[in-house]
Amino acid sequence: MDVKGYIGKILKVNLTDHTIKEFSLDKNIAKKYLGGKGYAIRLLYEYLNEFEKHGIDVKNIHPFSEYNVLIFATGPATGIIGFPSSGRYHVIALKSPLTKSIASANSGGKFGPFMKFAGYDIIIFEGKSPEPVYLEIIEGSVELKSAKHIWGKSTFETTRILSQKVGKNCSVACIGPAGENTVHFACVINEEHRAAGRTGIGAVMGAKKLKAIVVKGNTKPEIAKPDEFKQISKNVLIKIKKNPFTGKELPKYGTPFLVNVLHKAGAIPSRNWQKCYYNENELNKISGETLVEKYIKTRSACWGCPIACAKRTEVKNDMFYVSNTEGPEYQSIWAFGITTEVIDLDVIIKAHNLCNELGLDVISMGSTIACAMELYEKGHISKEELQDLKLSFGNAGAIIEAIWRTAYKIGFGKYLALGSKRLAEIFGAPELSINVKGLEIPGFDPRAIKGLGLNYATANRGGCNVTGYTLFSEILGFPKKVDALTYEGKAMLVKNFQDFTCVVNSTVSCLFTTLAIGVEDYAKMLSCITGFEFNANELMKIGERIYNLERLIINKYGFDEKHDILPKRLLNEILPKGPAKGHVVELEKMKEEYYKLRGWVNGRPTKEKLKELDIP
Amino acid sequence: MDVKGYIGKILKVNLTDHTIKEFSLDKNIAKKYLGGKGYAIRLLYEYLNEFEKHGIDVKNIHPFSEYNVLIFATGPATGIIGFPSSGRYHVIALKSPLTKSIASANSGGKFGPFMKFAGYDIIIFEGKSPEPVYLEIIEGSVELKSAKHIWGKSTFETTRILSQKVGKNCSVACIGPAGENTVHFACVINEEHRAAGRTGIGAVMGAKKLKAIVVKGNTKPEIAKPDEFKQISKNVLIKIKKNPFTGKELPKYGTPFLVNVLHKAGAIPSRNWQKCYYNENELNKISGETLVEKYIKTRSACWGCPIACAKRTEVKNDMFYVSNTEGPEYQSIWAFGITTEVIDLDVIIKAHNLCNELGLDVISMGSTIACAMELYEKGHISKEELQDLKLSFGNAGAIIEAIWRTAYKIGFGKYLALGSKRLAEIFGAPELSINVKGLEIPGFDPRAIKGLGLNYATANRGGCNVTGYTLFSEILGFPKKVDALTYEGKAMLVKNFQDFTCVVNSTVSCLFTTLAIGVEDYAKMLSCITGFEFNANELMKIGERIYNLERLIINKYGFDEKHDILPKRLLNEILPKGPAKGHVVELEKMKEEYYKLRGWVNGRPTKEKLKELDIP
Repeated sequence: MDVKGYIGKILKVNLTDHTIKEFSLDKNIAKKYLGGKGYAIRLLYEYLNEFEKHGIDVKNIHPFSEYNVLIFATGPATGIIGFPSSGRYHVIALKSPLTKSIASANSGGKFGPFMKFAGYDIIIFEGKSPEPVYLEIIEGSVELKSAKHIWGKSTFETTRILSQKVGKNCSVACIGPAGENTVHFACVINEEHRAAGRTGIGAVMGAKKLKAIVVKGNTKPEIAKPDEFKQISKNVLIKIKKNPFTGKELPKYGTPFLVNVLHKAGAIPSRNWQKCYYNENELNKISGETLVEKYIKTRSACWGCPIACAKRTEVKNDMFYVSNTEGPEYQSIWAFGITTEVIDLDVIIKAHNLCNELGLDVISMGSTIACAMELYEKGHISKEELQDLKLSFGNAGAIIEAIWRTAYKIGFGKYLALGSKRLAEIFGAPELSINVKGLEIPGFDPRAIKGLGLNYATANRGGCNVTGYTLFSEILGFPKKVDALTYEGKAMLVKNFQDFTCVVNSTVSCLFTTLAIGVEDYAKMLSCITGFEFNANELMKIGERIYNLERLIINKYGFDEKHDILPKRLLNEILPKGPAKGHVVELEKMKEEYYKLRGWVNGRPTKEKLKELDIP
Repeated sequence: MDVKGYIGKILKVNLTDHTIKEFSLDKNIAKKYLGGKGYAIRLLYEYLNEFEKHGIDVKNIHPFSEYNVLIFATGPATGIIGFPSSGRYHVIALKSPLTKSIASANSGGKFGPFMKFAGYDIIIFEGKSPEPVYLEIIEGSVELKSAKHIWGKSTFETTRILSQKVGKNCSVACIGPAGENTVHFACVINEEHRAAGRTGIGAVMGAKKLKAIVVKGNTKPEIAKPDEFKQISKNVLIKIKKNPFTGKELPKYGTPFLVNVLHKAGAIPSRNWQKCYYNENELNKISGETLVEKYIKTRSACWGCPIACAKRTEVKNDMFYVSNTEGPEYQSIWAFGITTEVIDLDVIIKAHNLCNELGLDVISMGSTIACAMELYEKGHISKEELQDLKLSFGNAGAIIEAIWRTAYKIGFGKYLALGSKRLAEIFGAPELSINVKGLEIPGFDPRAIKGLGLNYATANRGGCNVTGYTLFSEILGFPKKVDALTYEGKAMLVKNFQDFTCVVNSTVSCLFTTLAIGVEDYAKMLSCITGFEFNANELMKIGERIYNLERLIINKYGFDEKHDILPKRLLNEILPKGPAKGHVVELEKMKEEYYKLRGWVNGRPTKEKLKELDIP
């Protein structure tokens, strides 16, 4: 391809008949959607149009049917040395089993760059294989192979087996038993501990009988203006090193530095969001500081990342022994330790590691356990229905047992495997699932961080912090500090974060870079790499285009203003403790302002907006 | 059929082509082999002869191949009201995955009688189904049905789903995930907690894709001389009630009464048979007495059993919570609590229950864990190989995790799933597996119970106490007391127990009855039921015939004197503590005497012996 930064090739694998085709990346689409999430969304949109032409009811495409389309995508920055944190990839599918909306997730490690080095920017999977298979790409040579010998194996073992077969310098993205068993929040795991976690993409792979993708190669993307890029990259790196979070907190503690930060903001929900966890002594037991002091063995980083927020840890306690793992992240600490009230890093690390091994999303897993705990506490689930799984808040044993049972749908696990929304519906108390659009909200309480509340409500993929990570501004004060507890300006803040995040996920790089560098830096670097001339405004327009096209897709599925909501608990039940004591989220005004800024009516982009964004 | 006691029908199900045939029970075979194990062994023998005629190498028939034949068999006493403990059935297969020898196991509950009431004495399964199936027999009407909806489900859930479908008064025998995953010691479970436990018959079912058998019906076997039978039965019941074990200890404590009894004899091996557990205070924590005091909710019994040794228990401790289960037995207490040195009934009951739910044999599971613990302790297994499973003696957490990992072959579980013999071979220390012919020896130390040592060595199915349960005489003193520590007379004792046990397993009744009643009682009752005229000598001859025919079969597989051995540890390492301190098993002299009594040369029945026993 004549645009640099890309390999220029897209692979299309039909799993039903095992045909494999290759076609060129479209320069015009690349200019308008970059790559990664943006390009993939655009491809999904084409699929939907094609389906509609053939009279297929796209609203009701089943996530596990052959019509679901799955896309692994890298972007122009993926695998470019000098572009900070460019070791990521984005995965997307037409339908998530958890949300029945678009499925979308992002992961680090080295799979993204290695996929590109193997010769492809994007891989599309259509159809459904009759027998388990995995895709092997070695230096542009592509083969679908039988996965019979690895079906049933954990992500750790699958990775080891396929890596040993292919040899050094390969990367494996795969599913575990949870994905094979189509647990609704099964994830994709690469490098054993990097997860494309949310919205159940692992289950989509499982239903397609696609166990893994192995990539290896030496095809390196070129840079249009290498000297200029080098200079800019140097400055960008200095910014990252200087920033207190990307330069210090994240490298030292990883995301668990957030435990104490969020505590100060009174923004840690507990007991399935019934309470606010506001007890410094207790939280200190599971803080980033304690993690460093007692559990961390070494540091670790994704490919090409100057931040290096990953950590290798161990648990010495026999009962919850873990020899050598990566993690936990803030969200695993919250999901297994705080919302379930099991304030114990031993259990949290064991649970986090087991989820990686079996292929489960930690946020949905922990949240679904906590939801079941409240359902049991309130009498909606009987003791008989739980059988031998005692889902009481604070019960460490139940956490580990629930994970095994969920991955294999054994006993009560068959209900947990559906996620909290369907669980709470089945047991007659839907209000006890703290989700948006079916996706469990992560552990930042929007009653204490208002912008995040608006983002949760309007995020296209559902209850998600990383769609518009306004916490950076509202809590961490970067790129600039805004008051977490006010509503003013939050609509614009959310829109900007959401649009910029689309740029980041289409670049593809890591959101954490945006703590230190802005869209101008992205524009400069992407221009140097690709040879396109982007400025900041144009990039933000690209982000907006991607976000609107994604919205257009979920509109097709029937999602609109009615679904841009928050759980009642966050709207009506005040935070009982801490700096945000007495607060709820007053969503409506923010949402109205947000729709105006977006040019949306009833949660749907208007024709004018689409025209303005050049969406066909 | 003109012989009473039987239904008179055998069912033959070909799983490969799903054909189902029915044929009559052979009166002459019934007279010479009774039913249950005896009749089934005879059928296996015919299969082998047929295979040999067709040039099939029977020695190397793979346990998971379509050539393996699986038989569920009841006997003339099964389901006869008034025959004590006649609620049992026997399962047998040509090849065990664990031992590569004959597979054989026995279970209580109500499946045996209900299978007979459904219209069949015996069910034979040939071949291998392409897709998961279960067999449904309702009042003589037989159907192979798709098991797609229950494949992957636990034994508990499978039982509930099929029972609800068929309605009251049915019984389900099924496998769990362990059987589906062909764990080499997977078992068959009926009534959720009754196990045909040993030699991996669950894995044979799993390989055949046979998930379950459901039976229901009202076809009742007749009795030839009902009035006479009633009278004898009454006397027999009195004997059972009067006997201290069948009348008191077993009803009160279940098999765990053995903990303290075996302790007094210094016959409880611990730490994978490295030590003798001889500490009364510690053992009191897991004794039958403590079980009654702290865990037992209600009593329970198999169909038609006046002994009622089963118990419903619960674990209140959150960490190892179990709401309502059956068990544990002495052997689970030993396997999860003593040989692993986890002296904790909470853990033991949790482990026992989980094995039932997932379909694993408790003795082999616990013994294999203990074997792995010693392999790790001695440096044969590295920390890296164990990954996150810390197999240290005394580690309660490892027990539960090991069970999950084994059932699904996850991580180190893939090695545990092979059983201790292959595990120890793989890691280069075969002497650390305490097995005979591949079957893990249960928790009675033969260094303190010499006859049991000879029985372990010569038991056809491998290291098994219930093949010749001389402990009854040697420790409990019934039917008569003999000294446990002497060798004199043990060859005859073992032979008699082994032969009589064949009678019991072909009747089919429960071994525990033989604590109170003898072969004369069996002869009288069986004569009344069938109308055959059996006396005690004839019955013992039948037992001997069955045992010799079984031996002939394992001889065909290459098992002979070389395999009638004990692990070196039991021959060379003295018991370090207790009444049998300083003892080993001096096997050779006993074995020589035993072979003479048996009429065997090199562990093989002579032609004369076979002729005497009328074995063709």
